[in-house]
Amino acid sequence: MTIEEKFDMLGIDNAPGQEALQKHQALDLRGEPLPGPAVDFSHGDVNAHIPTPGSFEVFERGVKEGAAQAYTPYRGRKLILEHVAESLSAFTGAAIDPEKNLILTPGTQGALFLAMGSNMMPGDKVAIVEPDYFANRKMVEFFGGELVPIPMHYEQAEGKAGIDLDALKEAFENGVRLFLFSNPNNPVGCVYSYDEICSIAAMAREHQVTLIVDELYSRQVYPGIPYTHLCAQKEIPDNLITILGPSKTESLSGYRLGTAFGTEAVIERMEKLQAIMALRCSGYNQAVFLTWFHEPEGFMENRVKAHMEIRDAILEVIREVPGVSARPTEGGSYLFVTIPELEVSLHQFIRIIREMANVIVTPGTEFGPQYLHQFRINFSQDKDNAVAAMKRLFAIMDRYRKQEEK
Amino acid sequence: MTIEEKFDMLGIDNAPGQEALQKHQALDLRGEPLPGPAVDFSHGDVNAHIPTPGSFEVFERGVKEGAAQAYTPYRGRKLILEHVAESLSAFTGAAIDPEKNLILTPGTQGALFLAMGSNMMPGDKVAIVEPDYFANRKMVEFFGGELVPIPMHYEQAEGKAGIDLDALKEAFENGVRLFLFSNPNNPVGCVYSYDEICSIAAMAREHQVTLIVDELYSRQVYPGIPYTHLCAQKEIPDNLITILGPSKTESLSGYRLGTAFGTEAVIERMEKLQAIMALRCSGYNQAVFLTWFHEPEGFMENRVKAHMEIRDAILEVIREVPGVSARPTEGGSYLFVTIPELEVSLHQFIRIIREMANVIVTPGTEFGPQYLHQFRINFSQDKDNAVAAMKRLFAIMDRYRKQEEK
Repeated sequence: MTIEEKFDMLGIDNAPGQEALQKHQALDLRGEPLPGPAVDFSHGDVNAHIPTPGSFEVFERGVKEGAAQAYTPYRGRKLILEHVAESLSAFTGAAIDPEKNLILTPGTQGALFLAMGSNMMPGDKVAIVEPDYFANRKMVEFFGGELVPIPMHYEQAEGKAGIDLDALKEAFENGVRLFLFSNPNNPVGCVYSYDEICSIAAMAREHQVTLIVDELYSRQVYPGIPYTHLCAQKEIPDNLITILGPSKTESLSGYRLGTAFGTEAVIERMEKLQAIMALRCSGYNQAVFLTWFHEPEGFMENRVKAHMEIRDAILEVIREVPGVSARPTEGGSYLFVTIPELEVSLHQFIRIIREMANVIVTPGTEFGPQYLHQFRINFSQDKDNAVAAMKRLFAIMDRYRKQEEK
Repeated sequence: MTIEEKFDMLGIDNAPGQEALQKHQALDLRGEPLPGPAVDFSHGDVNAHIPTPGSFEVFERGVKEGAAQAYTPYRGRKLILEHVAESLSAFTGAAIDPEKNLILTPGTQGALFLAMGSNMMPGDKVAIVEPDYFANRKMVEFFGGELVPIPMHYEQAEGKAGIDLDALKEAFENGVRLFLFSNPNNPVGCVYSYDEICSIAAMAREHQVTLIVDELYSRQVYPGIPYTHLCAQKEIPDNLITILGPSKTESLSGYRLGTAFGTEAVIERMEKLQAIMALRCSGYNQAVFLTWFHEPEGFMENRVKAHMEIRDAILEVIREVPGVSARPTEGGSYLFVTIPELEVSLHQFIRIIREMANVIVTPGTEFGPQYLHQFRINFSQDKDNAVAAMKRLFAIMDRYRKQEEK
């Protein structure tokens, strides 16, 4: 394989936030555009849901402190590691030694990349869930692994995510070395049950599989949904990395902050890789971690409540459209929406609604090649604009339904 | 090879800034410590040489702008790409299209990692200079390349860096696919001559070798030293990436900003890799690029002059110590100091002076396994403290000279 062929697989034109790069092509535009405020559902809107109050002031103090905050060891500054380890231990229930079990990274994407790069060799079998975060499969491809997809029957499941545990068992028995999954799941927003988590942990332990658990949205689980931190269970595998960061619920994405915690030997490898990847999570930015898990009283509760209301308002819109469905989000800001057969392809449809309705969504194919009738939205938006945008989207969609569906 | 074996090669205990991680061991401490203000020569001191005036205010404006600055395409925000492309074109003389030839990265380390990762496949032969930046060889090892070292006879060269062009030619003829070098060189601080640059470019073009030129310190070239930007020459190879950033001379390291510019197809691959590595150079931090090449009148001239004075003061100290030498820096803030035979190993000596003299330097072995009698200093420090620290270092060193050397 040449380097060109390798990178052809890593396409990003349809990745969230990259829509402006798409080449112009003739689109089958039907009827008049539906005007309305632009909504970019490819990521959250930090203007509608502002960053943690006080975060900029903490950054400013870091800059003023100067050299001590600008240059830190590759894994992060000692006093910030201690602060974060204490917060994460309290939140998850896992024992995290700030000197051994924790690394600060440029965003959770950086944490995922370091975790993957320091746990797989070319040719290794790596299992991922379908659907799951779009970068997961691309990282496996970049590092030369062999992808083993594990189906998640999220639409038929109740009180659980719906991961196919038999398929996972078979994959582990057939030599999978590494398994990566997000909980709450991206793009569906479903949460793994206690039984699912314990089964995954026990199987990984038995088969000596390394686990990477992406818990990015675990602070935004909606009331009544039980959440299980795998890292805090009694029986965990020898190699376990958990990933978390303040980019989403806390709206601190502009600072690119992430963390990974877990097995000491793996964290050591991740630091070695960070040393050649980006040296460190930006020194000044690290200071902003001091606000994490120390938000003003009521801030997180209000944020979760606000998102639940947006979710419910959008689900109400969805329920009124024939042939359209979405599993109600249990954690996080995503909805994975299934749409009926159209007379245009999914990718064409997504470009059409961008043009005609001023609405950007992410195609389901980013989360698995089989999701040709799905798109993902991040509903961390202004509520009224988001509801209006979804109505425009479905109104445009109706113009493209296949005859038998109309 | 296992993942553990692979990462054993990527040791970072002796890497600049990581000294605090070194395990305690019994040292052969002779005589009394020499007290004095601590100097960490492993990196520049941004308290002694402050960040570009106005950089924090520009960052603040970015945060206040909100979503438009927090989320950008992976390669960077359009208006900032345009600003940087214009500045870099004017500085280097190369034609840089902001939409095609440029990417913003988390520090120049991020740029180097992306450039290496998107230009080599496992098994590829990759040439690097010895001595050169310590991460270069580690990146080749991480991506599974075969390292082909090219000697640089920097001590015998005048008016040129001293790279062994015959060895480079032979390497290219023997199948090297990629060649990476820094100019000004890190750790020596020597600058490649016009003839050296043109020879490298012509040979790379002839043998279809991809070039990565790390010009991190090219804004800090001392008066009277001609500097040649390879990217601006008539005959350049088809695949060429140049790397530059404001972390060093501009003291903006705490923001982690870097850029790479060059061949469109390579920049596209680098953006795909960035999408899974760290998504983007931190959104808010990108705003700080607006100060780059737009420093206040006289700021850069004064900074270069201040560093020349520190260099000269330290060279004066060095000249008085028998058996010690360093090639005078032509560009950048480094001196690569050769010391005589000691009764302790280089690594022991470096830990001893940290303990006894409160001085941190980087061992020569980080820049090539043969540099057992060298260390590197970054003299971007307070001048008086730096001079005093070097005097303490050599006073301690004298206690360890081999008998025949005393």
